[in-house]
Amino acid sequence: MPEIGPNTRLRTSPFYTKTLEAGVTAFSPYNRMLMPVSYGDPVAEYEQLMHGVSMWDVGVERQVQLHGPDAAKLAQVLCVRDLSRCKIRQGMYVPMCDHDGVLINDPIVLKLADDLYWFSIADNNILLWARCVAAERGFNVEVTEPDVSPLAIQGPHAEDVVASMFGEQIRHLKYFWFDDAEIDGIRLKIARSGYSKQGGFELYLMDSKHGSKLWDLVREAGKPWHISAGYPNPIERIESGLLSYGGDTDNHTNPFEVRLDKYVDLKLDNQVIGISALRAIAEKGVKRHQLGIKLHDSEPGPGHALWYDVYHNEQKVGDMTNGAWSAKAGCTIGFVLIDRQHTAGDQVVVHKENKEIAGTLQTLPFF
Amino acid sequence: MPEIGPNTRLRTSPFYTKTLEAGVTAFSPYNRMLMPVSYGDPVAEYEQLMHGVSMWDVGVERQVQLHGPDAAKLAQVLCVRDLSRCKIRQGMYVPMCDHDGVLINDPIVLKLADDLYWFSIADNNILLWARCVAAERGFNVEVTEPDVSPLAIQGPHAEDVVASMFGEQIRHLKYFWFDDAEIDGIRLKIARSGYSKQGGFELYLMDSKHGSKLWDLVREAGKPWHISAGYPNPIERIESGLLSYGGDTDNHTNPFEVRLDKYVDLKLDNQVIGISALRAIAEKGVKRHQLGIKLHDSEPGPGHALWYDVYHNEQKVGDMTNGAWSAKAGCTIGFVLIDRQHTAGDQVVVHKENKEIAGTLQTLPFF
Repeated sequence: MPEIGPNTRLRTSPFYTKTLEAGVTAFSPYNRMLMPVSYGDPVAEYEQLMHGVSMWDVGVERQVQLHGPDAAKLAQVLCVRDLSRCKIRQGMYVPMCDHDGVLINDPIVLKLADDLYWFSIADNNILLWARCVAAERGFNVEVTEPDVSPLAIQGPHAEDVVASMFGEQIRHLKYFWFDDAEIDGIRLKIARSGYSKQGGFELYLMDSKHGSKLWDLVREAGKPWHISAGYPNPIERIESGLLSYGGDTDNHTNPFEVRLDKYVDLKLDNQVIGISALRAIAEKGVKRHQLGIKLHDSEPGPGHALWYDVYHNEQKVGDMTNGAWSAKAGCTIGFVLIDRQHTAGDQVVVHKENKEIAGTLQTLPFF
Repeated sequence: MPEIGPNTRLRTSPFYTKTLEAGVTAFSPYNRMLMPVSYGDPVAEYEQLMHGVSMWDVGVERQVQLHGPDAAKLAQVLCVRDLSRCKIRQGMYVPMCDHDGVLINDPIVLKLADDLYWFSIADNNILLWARCVAAERGFNVEVTEPDVSPLAIQGPHAEDVVASMFGEQIRHLKYFWFDDAEIDGIRLKIARSGYSKQGGFELYLMDSKHGSKLWDLVREAGKPWHISAGYPNPIERIESGLLSYGGDTDNHTNPFEVRLDKYVDLKLDNQVIGISALRAIAEKGVKRHQLGIKLHDSEPGPGHALWYDVYHNEQKVGDMTNGAWSAKAGCTIGFVLIDRQHTAGDQVVVHKENKEIAGTLQTLPFF
């Protein structure tokens, strides 16, 4: 397999040298940075996440900071979900759309103060987008990328690790809410958050020069629970039905197609980018939807690096957008983005590398 | 070195399988695609480019297409260079800025018709940017990413190869101009262009399913001149003083700092994004400028993956933004982005991985 390393267009996270020490074997770019995507034993890493606790360098989740008198106004204009009920120290999962209602990101929006927001973003240049909107509309707000890099602690013992570091009160933190913390002089925000359904926290490091120190502190604190280095796990996220923006979406995907209906508030003002387009789409009816698929195979194969065509009666009806062998399911599972008339229980055929593999559609999540 | 491979957020170019066959050993992401950056022997590849002919998969140079009644208006608004003299079938090298005059790209803008433009972009999401501007200003224009992927042929024998494929008239094509062509049923645009100073062409493939076939046709036609697979060459581009957007620039860089003054037309209308900010910068005076640097070393070292601090009298005065061993120069050469009072001939010190290396500033290009 060809190699990848940092270059001047591809930055390292503050935890980079520690991930090398921990034996990282593969990276994928994400927001122009290197994100660990393997430490060599995917099954062991999956088990660790499901039954123990895992620590992930997710410094690639960059923050886009809105600061100033018009920060709240800009935040709302960028989001098709109503932010008016968002409290200080609360985070919200939010779809962002372009003017045509196409999904361009699905960040966690963190409200730090009435005039200060962070968008903790998926893989796309939202800094550029937010600056453009702010400037075009003449808003009085500064849009920057602060020196903030999340480190995730995920799995059933994540709370034990975090409580042992920061105190028992952290167990009362509500989902997506966050708080200030400090350890050994390192300032952090701690959020109950993370890209898995196994529970956990994200430590928002606010000074990249302390990356190695924070990594070591977490590793040390996690020893009683045998913590190890992992990464956002493709098997678990598929089993749990978590969306990957850019992985499961294309340049035409709207939020309704990928199960984000409940995060769209169609009554929002027309100033909100994409909201009038989404109203029109909702009225006209959505063409595709996202479902799970179980392939009729019986042996582990490689994960999916491409979208594969999905057929029904010799006609292409959709795409299989991800896939991984699930021991729990006993087959390869994945998501499809498929014409709306095909629903759970339907049989389809996936064209994968010159093979035709039968599959059954089902609702998400798998477990 | 950790591995990289395609995934659903990281696309392959139409020439991908052919680059694997040709023995690609490393990729870097660029515009969310895999760009070959090594075939294992950088010196041989450099020699090939300097004295023979080399073929490069630069499918990562995506096109942002503007089409419709307001295409010309949008194109101009996005560019701080005057496009009014650009003829059909002409390309122009153009700085693009945000509203603060910060460089966000340096594409070749190709005018295909009065209502049809392609921006052949460097590494940034200009599709998102252009769509935002068009929508915010209510322009009547469609902004899309067409199925277009350039294959570069570079080096002193590039013209021979291209003439042998498409006819002798191609020798009269002017720099950055392009023409329609067809070979074996494959439709192309051919431009005299490319990211080197050794001369050459880019074949704009307009249907990705013909990628392998086009690659083979070029390889076959290039045999008399011993063509081989290469990639935008870091040694040559540094020797020749070519800018790498995102590599040599940061989130504050304006065009004046990186020798793009002659491509900025300050008399343009205020509707042009960034032009009023650039006028203010020009009036106030630019703080940094880009120069070459020759390090006082005498043995080849690895290329630069990071920016390194540049010191003068114990004070940080700039950054060394790239670097490569140049046999021609007999030392490591690179670019600095440095306070304006430091000029060619000055001695500085580069702090590189705990070493202090003396260097002499000089004008660009090196050769």
